[in-house]
Amino acid sequence: MSHIVKSLPSERRIIEDIRSRLPGARAAGLVQGIGDDCAVLVKGGGLLELVTTDTLVEGVHFDLGWHPAYLLGRKAVSVNVSDIAAMGGVPCFALLALGLPATLEKTWLDDFLAGFTAALQEYGVVLVGGDTVRSPAGLLLSVTVLGEVAEGEVLYRHGARPGDEVWVSGCLGGAAAGLELCRGGRALPVGHPWASLGRAHLDPTAQVRLGRLLATSGLVRAMMDLSDGLATDLAHLCQESGVGAEVDGACLPLADELQQAAQELGRDPLDWALAGGEDYGLLFTAPADAAEELVRLVARAGGSVISRVGRITAGSGVVLFHQGRSRRIAYQGYDHFAVP
Amino acid sequence: MSHIVKSLPSERRIIEDIRSRLPGARAAGLVQGIGDDCAVLVKGGGLLELVTTDTLVEGVHFDLGWHPAYLLGRKAVSVNVSDIAAMGGVPCFALLALGLPATLEKTWLDDFLAGFTAALQEYGVVLVGGDTVRSPAGLLLSVTVLGEVAEGEVLYRHGARPGDEVWVSGCLGGAAAGLELCRGGRALPVGHPWASLGRAHLDPTAQVRLGRLLATSGLVRAMMDLSDGLATDLAHLCQESGVGAEVDGACLPLADELQQAAQELGRDPLDWALAGGEDYGLLFTAPADAAEELVRLVARAGGSVISRVGRITAGSGVVLFHQGRSRRIAYQGYDHFAVP
Repeated sequence: MSHIVKSLPSERRIIEDIRSRLPGARAAGLVQGIGDDCAVLVKGGGLLELVTTDTLVEGVHFDLGWHPAYLLGRKAVSVNVSDIAAMGGVPCFALLALGLPATLEKTWLDDFLAGFTAALQEYGVVLVGGDTVRSPAGLLLSVTVLGEVAEGEVLYRHGARPGDEVWVSGCLGGAAAGLELCRGGRALPVGHPWASLGRAHLDPTAQVRLGRLLATSGLVRAMMDLSDGLATDLAHLCQESGVGAEVDGACLPLADELQQAAQELGRDPLDWALAGGEDYGLLFTAPADAAEELVRLVARAGGSVISRVGRITAGSGVVLFHQGRSRRIAYQGYDHFAVP
Repeated sequence: MSHIVKSLPSERRIIEDIRSRLPGARAAGLVQGIGDDCAVLVKGGGLLELVTTDTLVEGVHFDLGWHPAYLLGRKAVSVNVSDIAAMGGVPCFALLALGLPATLEKTWLDDFLAGFTAALQEYGVVLVGGDTVRSPAGLLLSVTVLGEVAEGEVLYRHGARPGDEVWVSGCLGGAAAGLELCRGGRALPVGHPWASLGRAHLDPTAQVRLGRLLATSGLVRAMMDLSDGLATDLAHLCQESGVGAEVDGACLPLADELQQAAQELGRDPLDWALAGGEDYGLLFTAPADAAEELVRLVARAGGSVISRVGRITAGSGVVLFHQGRSRRIAYQGYDHFAVP
């Protein structure tokens, strides 16, 4: 089952390698380069510009066998908009690079574009350009999204400090469970008790509204989105902040249907929650004395639930405490070059 | 030889289809959406932001059998920067989305990144982000470049008017000839009389300096880069401007080595020049009375040659006049979904 690539280092090491080749990367107009959810550029008028790009490759990030074209179109938008939300920003413009295999049907493309444009409209994003090319093998989707945020509101990965508490929005592991169910050929129609798990994988939602709320609250110190699983994402946040973290396994928010599915499939729901990825909730840290106000603020806004799952330490790496035992979990999430 | 895809419409029709789905696309901050070399956004302070994305797919846009990693890294930058040059802008920032097959060697990736970062430095561009994913089939390169240009200097495709003269920079068809020579297994080492043709395909140069010169001259009405061949590119420019064009075959700038290679391979050099693509020179129009000043200006700046190849008409489409005959040539260039 395990397909370990020997010739190439991990995705993380490749990015670190690219980063190390850049000569300082101090350019006029550049606020934050590689190392966060978005690049951050000076826009003028007290605003910053956010830029992000995400690529989805058939057979790696999606399977046309079970991913409806319309929902894949939506997902291609949402996973990029999620990076804007992760900095506390508002998404504005998108570019779509499409690599289309010759075997693709026109009706499939129509459905994909319908979902893509519907999601753009929901997020208030305007498509302004792109590229359309042939792909000899599978379908390729590369989306770039530009957004903006006020200078005083932007939230980075590097702002966490020892003593901060670690929070997540929504439930964890739903997308990973949904992927496993889809992969196993399980139909999850509307009304099925586990339908929300399938939806979490097929049609995630970017947390733009919550991201704005947290960014403007003045209570949050560091933020990113949950795209690679809590273990990996929190490790990234810790690395950029020069801190460590402890996670309390008993505090991880797990949906009832996730626990049911785990039981039926004989899986540990914590694996999905920690290493699953693609939940696209927000991961953030805040001083302990901000907790009450944070919860009140989010509850009053409605639509989101946040959970305190751990704390930032002066150490390094991420340690999980669960049922009286501890283990290091940093970077145990999804790495594209070492697929479990 | 011809592999016509039946299920999908042409690249051009897909882009037209996407464009037709966008609801007016009049958004605050948007100056120019789909339909030009770059999207154009308001940046503030009298500046516009330019954004472009180009995707290169192994087996479609490059062949690892003959494309050295270092030069491919350079080309991935240049083809995107060329779109910024085409609007008269200066490139500033880049994002790189890499799709890497498991079989790729680390040394190949090192060489690629060395070429990529060398080209970035030459153009004064800073890499600020990207995405690194697995690709189950071939190598994928999707690059996004952001640039800027003053509001009064930007040049669009849609500015051409009947009576304008049509100009190109550099020689035409070199990249197409180089591709054919590489494909045929011809070695073109430094010093080979046709080495410049190989170089034109493997390592094109974006015309940033010339683009700036033309944009600031106040003499040019419309501009774009030559990426799909003169026939297709001029057809795009005419369509966006609501005009037609006539091309004089005797005026097309053909390098001596191109004509030699055409003779030896039994090819018509005009086919390479009109339909070849990937020359990455500039295509622009200017009023007839600006011709003398244009030539003087470019000569004084040094480093570039420009040639007058035709004129803009009140009609539609593109007509080639050559050796006493005329034929319509619009869109006979390279279309990714109908490969000759």
